[in-house]
Amino acid sequence: MKSTTVLFTDVSSQTWINETLLNNETHPEFSSEPGWFIQKQQLHGGTSEGVDLITVSNGALTLSIVPTRGMGVWKGDFQGTPLGWQSPVKSPVNPAYVNLSERGGLGWLSGFNELICRCGLISNGPPGKDPSGNPLESDLTLHGRIANTPAHYVSATLDPADGGWIRITGKVEEGMLFGSQLQLESTLETQLGSNKFRIRDRVTNPGAENVESELLYHINVGTPFLEEGANFAMPFAEMAPRDPRAAEGVNEFRTYLGPTSGYAEQAYYFEPVADENGFSPALLTDREGGMGFLVEFRRSTLPCFTLWKNTQSEERGYVTGLEPGINFPNFRADERERGRLKNLDPGDSYETEIEVSILNNSDSVDAVRQKITKLTEQAPSVIHSAPHSRFS
Amino acid sequence: MKSTTVLFTDVSSQTWINETLLNNETHPEFSSEPGWFIQKQQLHGGTSEGVDLITVSNGALTLSIVPTRGMGVWKGDFQGTPLGWQSPVKSPVNPAYVNLSERGGLGWLSGFNELICRCGLISNGPPGKDPSGNPLESDLTLHGRIANTPAHYVSATLDPADGGWIRITGKVEEGMLFGSQLQLESTLETQLGSNKFRIRDRVTNPGAENVESELLYHINVGTPFLEEGANFAMPFAEMAPRDPRAAEGVNEFRTYLGPTSGYAEQAYYFEPVADENGFSPALLTDREGGMGFLVEFRRSTLPCFTLWKNTQSEERGYVTGLEPGINFPNFRADERERGRLKNLDPGDSYETEIEVSILNNSDSVDAVRQKITKLTEQAPSVIHSAPHSRFS
Amino acid sequence: MKSTTVLFTDVSSQTWINETLLNNETHPEFSSEPGWFIQKQQLHGGTSEGVDLITVSNGALTLSIVPTRGMGVWKGDFQGTPLGWQSPVKSPVNPAYVNLSERGGLGWLSGFNELICRCGLISNGPPGKDPSGNPLESDLTLHGRIANTPAHYVSATLDPADGGWIRITGKVEEGMLFGSQLQLESTLETQLGSNKFRIRDRVTNPGAENVESELLYHINVGTPFLEEGANFAMPFAEMAPRDPRAAEGVNEFRTYLGPTSGYAEQAYYFEPVADENGFSPALLTDREGGMGFLVEFRRSTLPCFTLWKNTQSEERGYVTGLEPGINFPNFRADERERGRLKNLDPGDSYETEIEVSILNNSDSVDAVRQKITKLTEQAPSVIHSAPHSRFS
Repeated sequence: MKSTTVLFTDVSSQTWINETLLNNETHPEFSSEPGWFIQKQQLHGGTSEGVDLITVSNGALTLSIVPTRGMGVWKGDFQGTPLGWQSPVKSPVNPAYVNLSERGGLGWLSGFNELICRCGLISNGPPGKDPSGNPLESDLTLHGRIANTPAHYVSATLDPADGGWIRITGKVEEGMLFGSQLQLESTLETQLGSNKFRIRDRVTNPGAENVESELLYHINVGTPFLEEGANFAMPFAEMAPRDPRAAEGVNEFRTYLGPTSGYAEQAYYFEPVADENGFSPALLTDREGGMGFLVEFRRSTLPCFTLWKNTQSEERGYVTGLEPGINFPNFRADERERGRLKNLDPGDSYETEIEVSILNNSDSVDAVRQKITKLTEQAPSVIHSAPHSRFS
Repeated sequence: MKSTTVLFTDVSSQTWINETLLNNETHPEFSSEPGWFIQKQQLHGGTSEGVDLITVSNGALTLSIVPTRGMGVWKGDFQGTPLGWQSPVKSPVNPAYVNLSERGGLGWLSGFNELICRCGLISNGPPGKDPSGNPLESDLTLHGRIANTPAHYVSATLDPADGGWIRITGKVEEGMLFGSQLQLESTLETQLGSNKFRIRDRVTNPGAENVESELLYHINVGTPFLEEGANFAMPFAEMAPRDPRAAEGVNEFRTYLGPTSGYAEQAYYFEPVADENGFSPALLTDREGGMGFLVEFRRSTLPCFTLWKNTQSEERGYVTGLEPGINFPNFRADERERGRLKNLDPGDSYETEIEVSILNNSDSVDAVRQKITKLTEQAPSVIHSAPHSRFS
Repeated sequence: MKSTTVLFTDVSSQTWINETLLNNETHPEFSSEPGWFIQKQQLHGGTSEGVDLITVSNGALTLSIVPTRGMGVWKGDFQGTPLGWQSPVKSPVNPAYVNLSERGGLGWLSGFNELICRCGLISNGPPGKDPSGNPLESDLTLHGRIANTPAHYVSATLDPADGGWIRITGKVEEGMLFGSQLQLESTLETQLGSNKFRIRDRVTNPGAENVESELLYHINVGTPFLEEGANFAMPFAEMAPRDPRAAEGVNEFRTYLGPTSGYAEQAYYFEPVADENGFSPALLTDREGGMGFLVEFRRSTLPCFTLWKNTQSEERGYVTGLEPGINFPNFRADERERGRLKNLDPGDSYETEIEVSILNNSDSVDAVRQKITKLTEQAPSVIHSAPHSRFS
């Protein structure tokens, strides 16, 4: 049995499928079991006009991928449990309606509502003027451009190996004359019937000069995982609050408030510890410990982890971010100083890997907790009570 | 007999009708009389690419509503008489091609050509930095965002009551993480065969914190109503010119010049007086008094009225604005100081109502004039010859 | 025999043909010979989403015209030889995804990949604040707006005269309330089987006040014409390097380096000399002189010529620009000082004409070289070794 690949979008060959549905009826040779599907469609109306959407279901887990927004994952569903959060921005926003430069460089927020959204590739973190970079790229806007850059290539692969894998691949490019050039090739894959999905990204410098890169995965989770008394756990060597506001809550960083009117965001920076396979687990569990949202990431290329707590009122966006990155979301000049920018020579690339698992019973939650506890026992687990210059 | 509602656009349910025509043949149960119709289409080409347009005719009066531009009314026609003006911008502009921040914050002008266009919801008036607002919203651009925000919900209702009403409803949202949230629900309605249409808007704060709102209806009329010797009339308690330029013409504010090369705009601010039903009439008539463009607005929620005189040459846009608002189009910080911002607590809303009538004979013009004269006789009618701090 | 015109796009009459193909089968009365065609299509995916593309072939020469990008010519092909260059930006970019104001006013570069792209109509040259212009237009961005303004009218004409001419006409407008108004009407024409095409543009001021205009044709050529040892030739009265960087290479301005990592662009400003028909030839030839890219332009309306040498590495965009203009691409205020802005009174217009020929054998190359040599012998050919105040 061999894989089947369906090319949805390829600008270079002018390939384009506007709408299609792949499932057990169209591709019984992949799997004749009902339930799985890949649906491609184009959204219409409001600021979603023209947004390309790919909905993938492995039969148990459903994910909405947005090629128009840099292959981000808008939202998901696992056996009826919603994955994602309720942003004030309700549906995927076409970047044609986003002005990253406006609002003091915070225009990115006007399109932000994803479960997973990349921040990069040239920079992430707050807006500002970075005098050291390419003059074309010195006016940094919040979290960079990749989440507002449409993919020029999108395909789906049905691989019958191991009971069946679905893979969605997208390619997104940054660059122009006189600018840094960076290419993202992203694959999201999930096995039929699984409670997991994996993202494998490769970022390449196709240019002729060295370029700097930043990349962070803004993985955003709300209810029902997040609630009053919800819990965060991960093994780490060292942690520091990002700023004085985060320092206020450093003793309670592991637990969450319920929706809190007037709450101001808090961020914690971690140096994660990895398991024997090189993966670091970060786990969000509900109060009872009956369900969990687990992010495991390959620490070698994602050595930084940011915990973003934003337990505002539901209406304003009750959410927490589990954010592995090659860097922390400080201003790029500060990250450069701390040696955390990725420098890519011509032709060079780096790869990242993240696996997300949805745990829907206390046994599976407990098993991950025990693993984290064990890793934690072997780890330094240094907690700085105030911002530390190594981190921010 | 009951109403029929056709849903054209609803992003949340992924409903979308690209093109359709409703008329006496498709909906004879509403009215079998020929003449009325609702046509939905999508424009193509130029900066109109992708603009959604709804043309409504009650058999006598035709209006073009633009969901893509915040449910504005592009232009109209009453029995062969054009309603609107000749902007240098000829067709409806997709906001994807408008950069509100450019041109020193005056980018809004690059899409401005409507008969009726809303200015708001967070601010209107000139661009600038308002230090008191939300930092995300302190870089104010001319007249705010609502006219450049596509509606995410659009429907048409055919209500057979009273001989037949056509209603077009749209919903438009402003807001994002960390930003003010405001929702507009707008209904335009017209009775079959009538010379009138009505706009009823509700602005709601769906968020969890108090927000400020501004809203002004930029109702713009050119020839044949506007011409040399055309006349403006409304009953008012007090009026002041906006600035020294307007003060130059304060004695002639009721009459209009013909197209005048080099003319610089003049604006007059009114505290309107209402009739026994709570509505204030503002009337523009041609020189002979044979035709009139009448705007009546509910004064309780629209306590401010701005008369905009812009009798430039035809090529540059010969036009006057009859502009009811919850505020005057001063810089937002100045309006805040004068207590004219609408403060909405979570869940709160306000409603506005405007009726526009096209008068096509001297009898109907005279009747309105007499009504205005009568209301004027009972009103203070204070005219400041120079700008007054209560107003600007 | 008479001409046939097919209207593809006309926003004012809501005419739109999404996709079509004209060729010897659909229009045998024009020419029954196979090979020629006009294909209209709309691109999808990436930042090319919604871009309108017209591909024209005269049977030997093929050109891709982009109405969405101001009637620019993306690329071409002559009997298998590619015309254009390899920009880091691979496909035509919808201006909805271009923010001209960002990147310090250099956002234009994010869509720049054309063989021929106009710079204007209100300004070209570097970004900056020009205090003397209309306040709406004083924040100048690189090379102006016309290349990022979609055409509102596009048609194709099949004219059987002289063996058959294909003409593509487009209209593009700049302007808004309170702004300068300028209209471009552009015609590209080519004869069946020819190695040439011609562009005839008319720029008109439809407004009621005098406006300033700048216009430059950024004609960009890469391999195989451009290579190490490639040669540039044109007859001229006077030439000066733009800046000290260009002065470094003034003695070698006629020859090109191969792709050179770290190369910084050089620009030379020429006062061209015309032939007896009023046309100035500018010729790029490969090292061996076996092929040439010839630009001939009517000097009376295009009195300025800029040679842009940008022999960076292939990956960053190895390219040279042969750029006739009504002005040099200095900052607009400097060009105003030097009297090179075009002032248009209401209703006035100017016309430009450019012919591009692809020479594919040494005989045709030699013939043009001899013509240039002869014109050069009669010309002053003054070369300034340093920037000169007459030019920059």
